[in-house]
This record gives sequence, structure tokens and C-alpha cells, in this order.
Amino acid sequence: MIEIAVLGFGTVGSGVVELIDNNQEWIRRSVPEGIHVKYILDIRDFPNSPYADRVVHSIDVITEDPEVRIVCETMGGKEPAFTFSRKALENGKSVCTSNKELVEALGTELMLTAKQNGMSYLFEASVGGGIPILRPLRNSLVQEEITVIGGILNGTTNYILTKMEQEGAAFDDVLKIAQEKGYAERNPEADVEGYDCGRKIAILASLATGKKADYDEIPCEGITKIAASDFAYAKAIGRAVKLLGIARKLGDGSWSVRTAPFLVPDDHPLYPVSGVFNAVFVHGTMVDDLMFYGRGAGKNPTASAVVSDVVELAMHIGVPLRSAWNEEKLTLADSDLESHRFYIRAAAEQAEALEAAFGSGLEQIDLGGQEEDALTGTTAFVTGEISERTFAERLGSIEVQNVIRLL
Amino acid sequence: MIEIAVLGFGTVGSGVVELIDNNQEWIRRSVPEGIHVKYILDIRDFPNSPYADRVVHSIDVITEDPEVRIVCETMGGKEPAFTFSRKALENGKSVCTSNKELVEALGTELMLTAKQNGMSYLFEASVGGGIPILRPLRNSLVQEEITVIGGILNGTTNYILTKMEQEGAAFDDVLKIAQEKGYAERNPEADVEGYDCGRKIAILASLATGKKADYDEIPCEGITKIAASDFAYAKAIGRAVKLLGIARKLGDGSWSVRTAPFLVPDDHPLYPVSGVFNAVFVHGTMVDDLMFYGRGAGKNPTASAVVSDVVELAMHIGVPLRSAWNEEKLTLADSDLESHRFYIRAAAEQAEALEAAFGSGLEQIDLGGQEEDALTGTTAFVTGEISERTFAERLGSIEVQNVIRLL
Repeated sequence: MIEIAVLGFGTVGSGVVELIDNNQEWIRRSVPEGIHVKYILDIRDFPNSPYADRVVHSIDVITEDPEVRIVCETMGGKEPAFTFSRKALENGKSVCTSNKELVEALGTELMLTAKQNGMSYLFEASVGGGIPILRPLRNSLVQEEITVIGGILNGTTNYILTKMEQEGAAFDDVLKIAQEKGYAERNPEADVEGYDCGRKIAILASLATGKKADYDEIPCEGITKIAASDFAYAKAIGRAVKLLGIARKLGDGSWSVRTAPFLVPDDHPLYPVSGVFNAVFVHGTMVDDLMFYGRGAGKNPTASAVVSDVVELAMHIGVPLRSAWNEEKLTLADSDLESHRFYIRAAAEQAEALEAAFGSGLEQIDLGGQEEDALTGTTAFVTGEISERTFAERLGSIEVQNVIRLL
Repeated sequence: MIEIAVLGFGTVGSGVVELIDNNQEWIRRSVPEGIHVKYILDIRDFPNSPYADRVVHSIDVITEDPEVRIVCETMGGKEPAFTFSRKALENGKSVCTSNKELVEALGTELMLTAKQNGMSYLFEASVGGGIPILRPLRNSLVQEEITVIGGILNGTTNYILTKMEQEGAAFDDVLKIAQEKGYAERNPEADVEGYDCGRKIAILASLATGKKADYDEIPCEGITKIAASDFAYAKAIGRAVKLLGIARKLGDGSWSVRTAPFLVPDDHPLYPVSGVFNAVFVHGTMVDDLMFYGRGAGKNPTASAVVSDVVELAMHIGVPLRSAWNEEKLTLADSDLESHRFYIRAAAEQAEALEAAFGSGLEQIDLGGQEEDALTGTTAFVTGEISERTFAERLGSIEVQNVIRLL
């Protein structure tokens, strides 16, 4: 038996313990000696849990037990998760985690600690929930030059956008329903402002390039300004509104990394991805387009991804796995110079001003007689491909209701 | 440098050689010493190729050179690919291949030979072209009980079906265009009769279960009977016609494996997969639904998958990888007892006979006034969920134009 410890007995942590117990038959196909959870670290006791006797309250019990070879950190947050993870690595235990906040902020340091101690630090569950994406990038696409990576990385906002599209409903109303259903947190800021998506695209960009992309430098827009009318205009040009985290290699070799709503065309594989599902799009120079689709959150899918790391670590006891990225920082492109086509929604009386400012490249969106009451008095345009800076200059002080980039 | 040999300098083989040359920078992230193609085996010479000096005509040159650690078999067909692969394994070289025919027919034997010689036999490129699917199944989903696997496994037929749907065109006309564009072979039988798809679902079912599913035992239907009218009726019930290879675990623990056209509902992730793209759908009991999407064929995507195997083998010199399945045979469910809903298209005058035979469970498809000329004189129905046997019994001798299962 390979002994492991789980830090944090919340939703994901309890899922990990249960999955390892229930799916031992499948796990033994790859780890014939089996995997066993020896300790569960939590500040609480769980007297009614079948795992009550494994609960401990001190990390030292775990780090000082030489039998424990692998530690799963499913606590969330930076501290004490960081200190506990480092301590485990320093004491000869490999660590895996579902904690995207920690991986984004301090993953580089933990991978270095792992390397110095001949251990590994894995985090498949930190992006895309149950979708196998980090391991395929590490193990199946190493021969590829990746030039685009990203996609729908947050199930809460994709659920909200899908409902708004299907029901023509307002953001606030759908958010309330999502909160009632447990798809959105009571404080939804991290999701709806795009912060969660931003952390995940920082991790994916770092993996694709081998250099650390800093979350703090990534332009980040959420979905709070999206209105039902944006879906009507988007539909008229064969597109849907999706919140994307997307990293692209530009012509000069620099990388653009951004979190923002985009208008996605109906022939793009991300277009039909709806509800709480996530999907990661990858373009490699040889393999062309790929997409990995699945549940981006939830107890069992996330636990499955954590256990996939446990299994890989169990198969590589004593064999440190390559770090996902090194300490070098990824220099991001000047976002002002990036080019996009832009969608603009404005009050109808701004049409002339917009046409004067943007000139002949501007196309008005024709709703084809499908105008709904909600759209009365508004108009929408799509620009030609121009840089962010040119767009801002031409827009100047013209008052508009919303701006969304086209993918 | 890790020295390798490539058997067969056709489309895929030349892609492998070029990719290894061009993407050495990326490959060295995982294999720091680099990978080098020492020999190319072909019956032809390639005097104008930059690789002309590496071409050899005897397998013995390769198998007797102890420097060669890995052999890529990209010849296709059973022989001499089988003999050459076995000889390489017996001489201490791991082997990877894109040859689905060989893997399906003799992969079990080659994996056993690999095991006996402490070598590995990999075949990522045999299913789904460039899509990473076999390695994620082996490395990322081992903790899962897979209960459904399969999908759109043949790009030629998906291209034909997509064109038929978009243009209302007949099968024969679209096949001709596909042949002109090089998407279909001059002898298209293996694609359009579903044989290629059948081999691939046999491989996926074997991987998911760890036991060998025999292609010869898998019911196999192609797309030659699909007409433009089927798409019109399918659309009226929110579905599309797709050729699927699909393996499902049934309630009694047995497995149903089948290649056939299916009517796929518009909320299923396989529904929007169009053109030459492939997609593999996986359902695991913990991770729920997953889908892996990408190019199922083509020189560069297929070469990319072969090289992903080369890289994994190069990282595991001296460490044999677990066989994808063992010698045990997968017992398939009695296909007569499998239940489906069935779509039936028939001449209008058969409506009464069908309604009498199938009773109240039968629903006529209402085209909602969108009837086109092509549909005049025809009608279509959908049955309730019934077994294959019951369906055949009820249908009896009633003459129908086409029958398609619903997914």
C-alpha cells in the first residue's frame, strides 16, 4: 500500500478520500500495491464519518511519518496551504493540489522546493476541474509548439451566460438563480469579475510556454456589463457571448494573455459549450486545433483529477517529474498594441458619432426585422481589426453601452 | 541523442521525420539529450529528400543496431509491419505505430512480445489522429470506471455527412467531391462501410475495459443508406446524423460495442462536431462527461501523435510501460437484447402498417410545414425504447427506406 494524507476534509478532500476507497479496483490496474489514505488533516472533527479515526489536527503528524509518500492539499487559499505543502515537500513527500489560487501565486516556489528535494508538485485539478488538460499538455503535446491556449474556464459564468442567452434574462436575475442552485457563491466576485478565469489562464499560459505568466499583469474583465441585448446582436452575426481566458502567441513571439467576454463565431468548437461545462482549446503548429471538454467543477470531477495526480505520483515514487514551468517570467505583449475586431452597443443617437469616428470599416448589425422591445433605441456595430489603442482613441468620449471583442 | 528508426517513408512517416527535426527545441524540454532519426526503412529510394542518406532497405540494419532504442512503424497494413515490429521488440527496441489495422488485429500479441522483452508498444495515433486520447485514458483516467466511450472516429464519413446536411446533397455526389478533395480514398469502402470506425472503437473499448474487444464481433453499419431526407427529419426532432463507434457498459456489466449511424441530440457534445474533425466522448462514474476533439487524420496531426509516443518511450528507456490491455477477451453483450429508440423512414403508404405494428409508442415526425419536394411521399417515425429483437419482430416484412438508432 502507498500511504497518502489529505489536507482539508471539505468538498474536494472528502471526494478524494471516497474515490480512493471506492475505485481501488481501477487504481490497482496502475498501482498494483494500492493506495491508502492514512491521515486526513482538518481543524474540525468528523465523529460521524467512516473516516473519523484518520482525522488529525497537526501537520507534523503527517510530515514526520515516513510511511506517507504523497500529500493531497485540498484546503484552498494561500495559507496555511503553502506552508503545509512546502513542509511536506521538504520532508520527502510529493504533493498534489486542486488549489488554483496557491498554484498561480506560489506554484513556482513550490515546484522549486519539490525539485530541490527530489519530489514532485502536481495540480491537474486546478484548471478545468475533471478535464485532463495539464497532463496531456505535459505528456502528449510536448513535441508541439503551442500558439493558442485557453477557453471557457469558469462554469459559473458560463452557466449565467447560457441562461441569459436562452431566456433573454438579465444578469442580476440569472445570478440570483445560480446562487440558489449552488452554481454561484454568495459572494460571486471571483467568478463574475473574471478573477477565477484569470488565475486559470495564467496557469495554462505558464504551462504552454514554460515561463511564469503573472496573474496580476493579465488584463481581466468580467461579465457584469453583459446584457440580454448583447446576445440578440451577437446572434444576428452568428456569434455567442462567452467569457474566455485566452493566451495567444503573437507574430513577434510575445504572448498576449487576457480574460474577457468574447463574441465566439458559430463554427468555433467553443461556441456550443454551454451551461456549467468548461472547455480548453489548444492550437499547436503540427496538431492544429484541439479541444478538451468536461465538467470544470464539482466534488467528484475535481476529486477525480486530484486522484489522477495521486496515481501518477504513486507510479513515480523516487522519480521526480519535470516542473511545469521554470522561474523565468513570461513577458506579456503590450496589450495596447493587440488587434481585435470590436463589437459596440450604444444608444441609437450615437450611431452618427460612431460612424464618423470609425469610418468605413464600421459595420452596423442588422437584426433582420427580429427587433425586440428590449433593443428599441439601441444600435450595435462591429469594427474592422484595429489595435486596442486605436480603438480607444477613435472611441474617445463617445458614450457607449458595452464593448466586446470578437474571437 | 536517442536514436530512432522510422519504418515507411509515406505521408505519416515523412511527417514524423520532419516533426522530429523541426521541433527539436520543444522535444528537448522533455528529452534533454534530444531525439534523432538514424534510419528510414522503405523499399523506395528518395534521392531528392534531405533524408536520402538515412534510407535503408533491410529491417536487419535497424534491429541489429544497438544504438536504435525506438522504432516508429508507419507502414500500414498487417505485413510486413507485424513481423518487423515483433523483430524490433525482440531486439530490445520499443515500438510505436499509427497502424490501427495492425493494432486491432495483432496488438495483443505485440504487447505480449513487448512485455516479454521488457519493451513497450504504444499506438496513440491509431485512434483520433492528433487527439491525445489513449494516453489520457492510460495516465489521467485510470482511477475512473469508464461506462461509455466512443464518438466520431472517422473524418471522411463525418465530412460527407456534414456536407449532405449543409447542402441537402445526395451521398454519391458528396462522396465524389470528397474523393476529388483527397478526403476520401478512391476505394472508399473502409470508411463509408464503417470498417475503419469499427477498428477504432474496438481499440477504445479494449483500452477502457483492459480486455480485447474483437473487431470481427462488432456489429458494423456504414453510411451508404443515409439520404438527404434523413437529415430533414432528424432536424425536425433536433438531431443530426453522425456515424459513431460507441461502447457502453450495460446494466448487467456486459459491454455493447457498435459502429452505426446515430441520430445525435443537439444538446450532446458530439452534435456540433462537423467536417473532418473527430471527437471521442468518455463517461466516467466520477468525472462524468468528457470529450476530446481534434483532427482525426492528416500528415501533421497524425505525425504529432506518433512523436508523442516517441517522446514517452524516450523518457522511459529501460522502464516498460503497462500494456493497454491483456489477453483476456471482452465478451460482448447479445446485441439483439440491446435497447434503443429507432427512427424509421418509409413510403407514406406504409404509415398505417407501421402504426399497427408498433402501436402507441410510435411518434410520427412532424416537419412543421417545412416539407421539401424531396420528402413528398415519405414519412418518418420514432419508436419508444425497445430491444433490437423486438424492433426486428415488429417491423417484420414491412418495407422501409431506412432505419437509424437514436443516441
